[in-house]
Amino acid sequence: MRMYDIIEKKRDKQELSKEEIDFFVNGYSKGDIPDYQMSALLMAIYLNGMTPTELKDLTFSMANSAKTLDLSSIKVPGKYIVDKHSTGGVGDKVTLIVLPIVASLGVGVCKMSGRGLGFTGGTIDKLESITGYNVEIPINDAIRQVQDIGVCLIAQSSEIAIADKKIYALRDTTATIESINLIASSIMSKKLASGVDKILLEVTVGTGAFMKTIEDARELSKTMVKIGKLAGVETKAVVTSMSEPLGRNVGNALEIKEVISFLTADEETLDSDEYRDLREVVFEVAAQMIKMSGVSEDLEKNKKDIREAILSRDAYKKFIELIKAQGGHIYNVYMDWLGMSMDMPVLDEKVKYLKEIRAHQDGYIVSIDSRKIGEALVALGGGRNKKEDSIDFSVGFEFAKKVGEKVQEGDTILTVYYNDKNKFNDAYEYIADAINIDNIEEEAATALRQKPHILDIIDESNI
Amino acid sequence: MRMYDIIEKKRDKQELSKEEIDFFVNGYSKGDIPDYQMSALLMAIYLNGMTPTELKDLTFSMANSAKTLDLSSIKVPGKYIVDKHSTGGVGDKVTLIVLPIVASLGVGVCKMSGRGLGFTGGTIDKLESITGYNVEIPINDAIRQVQDIGVCLIAQSSEIAIADKKIYALRDTTATIESINLIASSIMSKKLASGVDKILLEVTVGTGAFMKTIEDARELSKTMVKIGKLAGVETKAVVTSMSEPLGRNVGNALEIKEVISFLTADEETLDSDEYRDLREVVFEVAAQMIKMSGVSEDLEKNKKDIREAILSRDAYKKFIELIKAQGGHIYNVYMDWLGMSMDMPVLDEKVKYLKEIRAHQDGYIVSIDSRKIGEALVALGGGRNKKEDSIDFSVGFEFAKKVGEKVQEGDTILTVYYNDKNKFNDAYEYIADAINIDNIEEEAATALRQKPHILDIIDESNI
Repeated sequence: MRMYDIIEKKRDKQELSKEEIDFFVNGYSKGDIPDYQMSALLMAIYLNGMTPTELKDLTFSMANSAKTLDLSSIKVPGKYIVDKHSTGGVGDKVTLIVLPIVASLGVGVCKMSGRGLGFTGGTIDKLESITGYNVEIPINDAIRQVQDIGVCLIAQSSEIAIADKKIYALRDTTATIESINLIASSIMSKKLASGVDKILLEVTVGTGAFMKTIEDARELSKTMVKIGKLAGVETKAVVTSMSEPLGRNVGNALEIKEVISFLTADEETLDSDEYRDLREVVFEVAAQMIKMSGVSEDLEKNKKDIREAILSRDAYKKFIELIKAQGGHIYNVYMDWLGMSMDMPVLDEKVKYLKEIRAHQDGYIVSIDSRKIGEALVALGGGRNKKEDSIDFSVGFEFAKKVGEKVQEGDTILTVYYNDKNKFNDAYEYIADAINIDNIEEEAATALRQKPHILDIIDESNI
Repeated sequence: MRMYDIIEKKRDKQELSKEEIDFFVNGYSKGDIPDYQMSALLMAIYLNGMTPTELKDLTFSMANSAKTLDLSSIKVPGKYIVDKHSTGGVGDKVTLIVLPIVASLGVGVCKMSGRGLGFTGGTIDKLESITGYNVEIPINDAIRQVQDIGVCLIAQSSEIAIADKKIYALRDTTATIESINLIASSIMSKKLASGVDKILLEVTVGTGAFMKTIEDARELSKTMVKIGKLAGVETKAVVTSMSEPLGRNVGNALEIKEVISFLTADEETLDSDEYRDLREVVFEVAAQMIKMSGVSEDLEKNKKDIREAILSRDAYKKFIELIKAQGGHIYNVYMDWLGMSMDMPVLDEKVKYLKEIRAHQDGYIVSIDSRKIGEALVALGGGRNKKEDSIDFSVGFEFAKKVGEKVQEGDTILTVYYNDKNKFNDAYEYIADAINIDNIEEEAATALRQKPHILDIIDESNI
């Protein structure tokens, strides 16, 4: 078998066989096939697509080339291990909130996350803004941790999905990232290799996401649900909006702070407009995970339980337990406003400067471009341009106003946390460009504020 | 400017600017752009095509990246320097016959040729089967040789068209060879860099050529004629048939022997059916070159002059002069059948074995697949699979029968010259597969024998 013939076949829109797909996945992993042949094939796949059979074979081949995890020791009869994956976004801290919630309600989770690249952040980077938190514990220790406290949150092991890792790095430099087939097989191969029973996908849509349109997000969701079905692993996709950043804070330590605020919120705060978007997404994703795990089928009941887990601080306690178990530093502080002392993670959050960005005119905020905010974070040093870049965990943005909210000239829209004035200037270009204020009718503004963040739910019933 | 953005633009079917094209041609030549990005771009170009403006810019950029030849010292007022290029085929020795003919008639030619790869042979390999013939003389010596004897035939200099050379090597391993745009810009960039006034292209069609259909050959021809027009270099394409091998001999030394036979033919032999295809192509190509050079406008007169140059042996003397000038060894032999002594080149032609392949049935030969014959030559060791392969000059095939000719069971169709029995067995598979004998009507057989080999002529009047 020759790589040349495989490239030629895909170039000419012919279907590749399982053997041919295994040949290039294994050959490329082992270094037998050079980058320049693989990139030509990836461009041909990008432009000519793949058949459902090819896609299944590619995903399974990449999953098989990885070291598959054995999670049998943490399996409980009648309950399923549910994994969660987000296609990423700006201000997306959903995993960090959902995992302690569902773990506190008896759903076991052993989740591997990635680092951020470009305008999207990564859960692992956010965790590393907690002093001492170790994202790279051995797999066996992670499984033991799930047995002990019901949750672990570690970095994607380099042992997992070597083929996917190499292929992704190549796609990243050859403009072949945004292929629905390649995105789907990359995500699903890692999830299938991780040995879970069920998969909940958060597929984000908007400028600050891979998928720019609801149509593309639906297609990606359906593609992944179909692969899951073929693999016998029930898969569900929650399609969520990422047109503006999710929540109020963007930046690594700042997002951890928002996680803490959300998980320690009282009833009034939790129900307030401040948390509208984050609450909607967190409750839906967590309720679906609880349902899929077999703990409870009833989504409305699950949402009530989630609410109770937050208000009782059980979820927050689980969050602290998770941080402690992975070596994160914790301090105990007396909270005046709570009239009690609380455990808090030690964060790498100290910045030299704060700067408030104010409204230049009266009106309503009609849009905040999440991609541009993501680019602004990279400009501040809070994200990566290249994989090798190190991250400044402390920088970021805290939004006082979001889309649909009223502003008067001079009102603070957001506060920028930064350490370098030149970088601030670079970031400011993006920020100024990202935020649009206009004089719209109050009804239109209300509609903007109240537009749903859960755009669709895709499962085996609607593919 | 970033290569990533250029790949993305072409991937998304947008037109690349002249600056972007210069960026990747120069960047790739200098080694600043890695192979894997270039191969992704080439696949995107292959699948999404190029606009006429992009194609012109690519060709000019590649020509400019090369060291352009200065042929002014060999220019004669009122006469033009005409270059010739063939898209290659099996048994294609047209250049080796045409050059001495036109040089003997006063047309100056300084031609650079390539080596063979895969099933198509290369003029330079054929010349190297002549002991001592030096294909790599310095450009200045080559120009002096044209001043002295009116002709030189050397290998494509590595100084010429470095960008094209690197890009071609990459295309060759990434299934992006057969792109009309990329073939046209590759050929024309080298020709434009060689500093000639006019270009005569032989565009071959058939299984043993790059272009498999007359439509593709016409499109390639038109594309190249258009580029020539934009460059102010008159370009004409003669579209010729390559469905069966051209002439009777295939193989390096064997093809030189056929060149000698053709150039020393008497009237009866020259007009015989043996040379029908070769004669038709040689006369047309040479007559067009003489016309383009400004020596004589009248194609019919040119063909008479060509005939006379052959029968007078003036063309053969020029051939020997060329070989001597480039260091090829010559011996003088008394020819009984001519009643005179003649200069002959020393050829690397000795083989261990000869084997006659015979007809298994009565009938007419209805087809000889030239690609399969080309593959058979590679299998014998007479062609290259990889650029690094060395060549056995002595092996090849001598056809006793060609398409449309009658055979009886047991008649010899061809003789195989070989040195290795295992390689013969590999080659035999291809040969047996290549030749088809059928019981057709005599009229149909006559039509097959007499089908034209000049399929079309494309110039500025019919693009």
